Amino acid sequence: KTPKKWVALDVNVFFLPLRNTATLISGRELARQIHREVQSEILEMVAQGYRRPHLSVILVGNDPASHCYVRNKTRTATALGMSSSTVFRPESVSQDELLDLIDSMNRERRVSGVLVQLPLPEHISERAVCNAVAPEKDVDGFHIVNVGKLSLDQRCMIPATASAVWEIIRRTGIETVGKNVVVVGRSKNVGMPIAMLLHSDRRHERPGGDATVTITHRCTPRPQLKEISRLADIIISAAGVPHLITADMVKEGAAVIDVGINRVQNTTSGELCLVGDVDFEGVREKAAFITPVPGGVGPMTIAMVMKNTVIAARNALIH
Amino acid sequence: KTPKKWVALDVNVFFLPLRNTATLISGRELARQIHREVQSEILEMVAQGYRRPHLSVILVGNDPASHCYVRNKTRTATALGMSSSTVFRPESVSQDELLDLIDSMNRERRVSGVLVQLPLPEHISERAVCNAVAPEKDVDGFHIVNVGKLSLDQRCMIPATASAVWEIIRRTGIETVGKNVVVVGRSKNVGMPIAMLLHSDRRHERPGGDATVTITHRCTPRPQLKEISRLADIIISAAGVPHLITADMVKEGAAVIDVGINRVQNTTSGELCLVGDVDFEGVREKAAFITPVPGGVGPMTIAMVMKNTVIAARNALIH
Repeated sequence: KTPKKWVALDVNVFFLPLRNTATLISGRELARQIHREVQSEILEMVAQGYRRPHLSVILVGNDPASHCYVRNKTRTATALGMSSSTVFRPESVSQDELLDLIDSMNRERRVSGVLVQLPLPEHISERAVCNAVAPEKDVDGFHIVNVGKLSLDQRCMIPATASAVWEIIRRTGIETVGKNVVVVGRSKNVGMPIAMLLHSDRRHERPGGDATVTITHRCTPRPQLKEISRLADIIISAAGVPHLITADMVKEGAAVIDVGINRVQNTTSGELCLVGDVDFEGVREKAAFITPVPGGVGPMTIAMVMKNTVIAARNALIH
Repeated sequence: KTPKKWVALDVNVFFLPLRNTATLISGRELARQIHREVQSEILEMVAQGYRRPHLSVILVGNDPASHCYVRNKTRTATALGMSSSTVFRPESVSQDELLDLIDSMNRERRVSGVLVQLPLPEHISERAVCNAVAPEKDVDGFHIVNVGKLSLDQRCMIPATASAVWEIIRRTGIETVGKNVVVVGRSKNVGMPIAMLLHSDRRHERPGGDATVTITHRCTPRPQLKEISRLADIIISAAGVPHLITADMVKEGAAVIDVGINRVQNTTSGELCLVGDVDFEGVREKAAFITPVPGGVGPMTIAMVMKNTVIAARNALIH
């Protein structure tokens, strides 16, 4: 009957045992959503008498991971009703041959999207190759003009991983306006475009998240990373460092998006397995939302490449 | 004789009366440094038998501030041994006429740098105009390819205000690697490029500051701005809001760079005067370094336009 008694107690005493673990965001389920949308867009195009979108991929060398990524993309393309083709070239391919190949794909009207799987061998300039793809067919969003447009909040091809993170946040209903976001990692294909999307103005041509964004990276001292991440409503880790984000760095109720894909050896079984940057078991006890690895950002990234290809095909009809 | 007595006292009691106010960074003095470098570069070019660099400016309409900025730039150019010319057009100029004018400047070998003073009238697309300037003559750094290159840490024309902030930090000897930087304001010509320069890798083609950078803006709630700015080793304010940055938001010993240029009316005299975003008198008691307004970033911005023009002239000799 005396409310004072209640007030005197730490509220956490009540909530701690009742607290749920984080809602697991299924990248696979969200990717299926996108797939359905892409599929019906393709059906509509075909019904209107247009050609199916076509994705052309260039794959250099024998890296098993690259082959796996490309297979996933082309298989998904086929499953969604697109056509696709992969041109394989050996590690020894010359830059000129690659540029010629890209040029022919740029000219080919049948080709909606061109994708050159990275990384490329040392003797080839990735920048020159990315800039050779016609900006309107550049489904990876790596052409210098697409990078510039992204930075100016203009409509453009957005790198698929950044788009994936954006869609995960949007479709999960996580608020960004005026929220604190920490992006861990500043790579030009992932961390930088994510920071660009999230900090920019929601009323611009390409809407942004209107969040306060902190970009952290390998030069950020660990204590400072912790200090800043504990203020974050959303943590997006794209550093490629297993167990970088631990529970003590996460604010109660934050959303944690794990973009890391790290191959680590299981200490007992010796098997290779995939882990993200986030200490999943610990962080899920504290976060409100968390993406798993695998099954989080990964499937969404492939879905966004599909979406970019259909956008490119649609744009080609208009222009 | 009893050290315990000393320990018991708050150390601030000793330091407060002894504490120095911030070192005032003179943008005018640093600009003179850059001017001397630009001047001797021009003398060298002339001695080598090359033409003097030439800055071509396009000025549309009658905005007094724009006329003042342009006059400052062309006067400085002349003082440093460059030639310059300004083409005036009325508010009613068509976009096509502007594009034609830019095109002729792009083709003119004598012209090293082309600068279109912003803002432009409503009926003209600033983006189309900025993209019309040849990237290698784009001394404002606003062409989409220069924006893309800046975002990818490639060598490029860097927007003058961002360069100015960078040079102020460098030449004052303020450490950035692993430090916390807060950029207040996300404009595409100022805040965004400053964040890009400061967060990126110092070993890249266009070296960055390797700092942890937080981008804040009008959607950042004031308490969060304060919470984050109090962690900052460097605060760069480019919001255009007088008295936005107050002493309670500044960490003892921080560097505060004021990019704001606000015209406010003096409440007693009624006169218009220039103030920055920083509550100068309060903040100088707490910061280690501070730039004044006027006389801080402003003169350095003009100096960096001069430097960009000479860089453009040099590059034209090489290519």
